[in-house]
Amino acid sequence: MSIAALQQTGDAVRRGPGRPRDEDLEEQILTGALALIDEGEPVTVRRLVERSGVSRAAIYRRWPSMTTLVAAALDVGRTVPPDIALDDGDLRDAVMGTLVGGRSVSAAGYSEERFRQRIRLAMGDRELQTAYWASHVSRRRVPLERAIAHGIERGILRPELDPTTCCDLLAGVVYYQLVVRGEEMSDPLVWRRCQDAFDIAWRGMLADRG
Amino acid sequence: MSIAALQQTGDAVRRGPGRPRDEDLEEQILTGALALIDEGEPVTVRRLVERSGVSRAAIYRRWPSMTTLVAAALDVGRTVPPDIALDDGDLRDAVMGTLVGGRSVSAAGYSEERFRQRIRLAMGDRELQTAYWASHVSRRRVPLERAIAHGIERGILRPELDPTTCCDLLAGVVYYQLVVRGEEMSDPLVWRRCQDAFDIAWRGMLADRG
Repeated sequence: MSIAALQQTGDAVRRGPGRPRDEDLEEQILTGALALIDEGEPVTVRRLVERSGVSRAAIYRRWPSMTTLVAAALDVGRTVPPDIALDDGDLRDAVMGTLVGGRSVSAAGYSEERFRQRIRLAMGDRELQTAYWASHVSRRRVPLERAIAHGIERGILRPELDPTTCCDLLAGVVYYQLVVRGEEMSDPLVWRRCQDAFDIAWRGMLADRG
Repeated sequence: MSIAALQQTGDAVRRGPGRPRDEDLEEQILTGALALIDEGEPVTVRRLVERSGVSRAAIYRRWPSMTTLVAAALDVGRTVPPDIALDDGDLRDAVMGTLVGGRSVSAAGYSEERFRQRIRLAMGDRELQTAYWASHVSRRRVPLERAIAHGIERGILRPELDPTTCCDLLAGVVYYQLVVRGEEMSDPLVWRRCQDAFDIAWRGMLADRG
């Protein structure tokens, strides 16, 4: 029996009816962190122990730093969107479909208030910002980048395009509404402006018809 | 003699050599507010009186609320870019020229740290965010919007374009780098990506050649 298997067995044996499972602990810690964030309190280990009732060791065992823990907490409820079906239907509609997620932040299991807190914390802490980018935002962009790459391969989009740059252009419009204008994405006029901007970008991405 | 003229005369008479001029007081207040912002301290009237040595009344006489004062402080050193020369040269180069301001935030008299503080405060206070948008950001966009409108009139750009939407699309790319990716605009690779994105947008804005 391998050491890992032994440890697993040990875990199973040690976990009595009163002992919380690993996922429960994790949820308890993240919920505690989110409560602190929502109250505008700094997330420190001390406060988190007080709030969640989980031990210092249990926290550190799961997250090597408060930065990664806060990044994980900020992402609670968000998921990586499913891959875009690339083999049938209109590519434009499929790409725009992924951007609809931006329409209602709450429809993505994410409140607008949580979004604002995320940006606020990120702007105050560059380490958190880049950790959140690497572990969460960049991963959620993958289906969109793949769909654009597929459009390039099929000759629908221009061969010299970089899917990453296209992604920045499309997503930038939504962030501009929320971060700079202070708009709410549930406002139909705001969403209309985003769609018009997506259309301009898409037109700039299309291959010449020859 | 009008009341205003009387007041002016009165001011001139009352202002002895030891009495600070209005602009000096204004600068003192804004400098005090910026010092608090840079230290991550909340800007309250009490703190500002302590920090700047200016009276409560002098502060309220100039700014009806702390929100407008903070918005003004965050904009210190920034200016509205000059109008784009529209009658000669290449419109594309002229438009891209206005966006170069985004290349080095510090070149616009604005440190990257100050930018981050601005977004951080705005995300924590929607009232400040919309005040700053209305009194500062939207005003700085005017030359760019005018140049785009001019391009539409001249038939260079598509007639159905909305200059406001185009502006959001172009500026969104720069904000995405700073706010989402956590990049520094002084990085040549980041600036290259922005330029490539501007090119895609511009291509989408161009009128069909018929």
